[in-house]
Amino acid sequence: MNDIAYYNGKITAINDMMIPANDRGFYFGDGIYEAAMVYNHKIFALEDHLDRMANSAAMVRIELPYSKERIGEILTDLVNQVENDCQFLYWQITRGTAPRNHLFPAQVPSNLYVYSKPCKGVEMSDEYKLKSVEDIRFHCCNIKTLNLLLNVLAIQTAKENGCQEAVFVRDGMVTEGSHSNISIVKDGVFITHPADNLVLPGIERKHLLAYCRELGIPAEERAFTLDELKAADEILVTSTSHPSMRVMEVDGQPAGMKDPETIARFRAKYMEDIAK
Amino acid sequence: MNDIAYYNGKITAINDMMIPANDRGFYFGDGIYEAAMVYNHKIFALEDHLDRMANSAAMVRIELPYSKERIGEILTDLVNQVENDCQFLYWQITRGTAPRNHLFPAQVPSNLYVYSKPCKGVEMSDEYKLKSVEDIRFHCCNIKTLNLLLNVLAIQTAKENGCQEAVFVRDGMVTEGSHSNISIVKDGVFITHPADNLVLPGIERKHLLAYCRELGIPAEERAFTLDELKAADEILVTSTSHPSMRVMEVDGQPAGMKDPETIARFRAKYMEDIAK
Repeated sequence: MNDIAYYNGKITAINDMMIPANDRGFYFGDGIYEAAMVYNHKIFALEDHLDRMANSAAMVRIELPYSKERIGEILTDLVNQVENDCQFLYWQITRGTAPRNHLFPAQVPSNLYVYSKPCKGVEMSDEYKLKSVEDIRFHCCNIKTLNLLLNVLAIQTAKENGCQEAVFVRDGMVTEGSHSNISIVKDGVFITHPADNLVLPGIERKHLLAYCRELGIPAEERAFTLDELKAADEILVTSTSHPSMRVMEVDGQPAGMKDPETIARFRAKYMEDIAK
Repeated sequence: MNDIAYYNGKITAINDMMIPANDRGFYFGDGIYEAAMVYNHKIFALEDHLDRMANSAAMVRIELPYSKERIGEILTDLVNQVENDCQFLYWQITRGTAPRNHLFPAQVPSNLYVYSKPCKGVEMSDEYKLKSVEDIRFHCCNIKTLNLLLNVLAIQTAKENGCQEAVFVRDGMVTEGSHSNISIVKDGVFITHPADNLVLPGIERKHLLAYCRELGIPAEERAFTLDELKAADEILVTSTSHPSMRVMEVDGQPAGMKDPETIARFRAKYMEDIAK
């Protein structure tokens, strides 16, 4: 198949998948999600994604429809049906199908929706531009929920300002991107926001911290200001689908691009990792 | 019909309605909604709801699929097909159907989903119990979006504590309920949170302020503390579907219930209004 969608056992092409309007995802955003890259039909960092999925679900009190292991098998089976060496895999779990009522529905299983589609391969960039926007989102950005309207508005604002990503700023401190983590390198030190309730615990963020340990690069998990971002030697935007986007401009002013060696070392580690 | 659902022109029973998984409501909560009561096949306060719908849509930059007037006609046509004197009418507008991408989709019309179903008639109560919960929601609660996961969790917590509604408290101040406004009466003065970015501009809240003017009841639009709530003469929980729920208990302690006359005057005005 060119691409594949799955909903509670039903399989179609992505554009053909229909779901009940009574799915609580549709009217409450009552669910959580994950996305992963697939290289050579192997889901990269699958265990990390399944662990985070389980954590997100637990925090919003959604019971998984199957065990983590079984969900991993379903995902693997699906990506094997798509004829492409590189795929973008997405899945979400919503709190079941029931007439609209804010209260949890009684004895209704959660819904698993999955799709996987071909993608270009490893996307990296040395030409990212950031637009800062005020972070007025909820205080549980550590949960990967479907409540993404403010993220949508943020990246649209970035695009309309000629940028590829928004950088959220809350009380003067950089939190994260609209669908990425944002880290900096300054004087050889890697600095990224702590994995608290204000940012998503990104899998690539986690990998970067591991690379720092392996490479002997000092790392600090602390919040930094927008001014620190602008004055950084390097600014790195990372996500599952875009693992290493190097920033050259913030709010219309040149930024970063002063420590290419450190970036090159991170990228080499990522390429090693996905080849394992 | 016993009940009715509508999606971009397609009509079914509510439980039978299927929508595309690519509707942005399903994976981003990228939409806004309204709900209204229908008495004798007349949509109560329809203009208020259409105005708020248009405001919500504008604030999140969703273009309405039709004019306000045309949407009003569609809604009226639908409620006329349901054989019941009292109905609960719900509609939502999402930012179109497209492959998942945070950026706004290009040249894709927004989706209109509507349902209407029988309900019991005017629901009022003198026995509401409230549970306070910390308000960690986003700072745009004035927009009636589909990003309702924290509202879902709040009312579920309330229910598990033997209560009918949650009261959100942010920095010590009462904001609103999980799907209602919360107002108090103290020494003959009606007090309700200002219609700023922290609360929904409720239609019943608006009507209550109008009733105050008509009845000569002094009204203040200001935030009040959880302690003020607990010490109020009356606590009123109001929403479209539950226009006058009188609170008898907050966090397990008796509260309110000391100014039945003012409550009775408000309720009489509501009953007059819906009979017009």
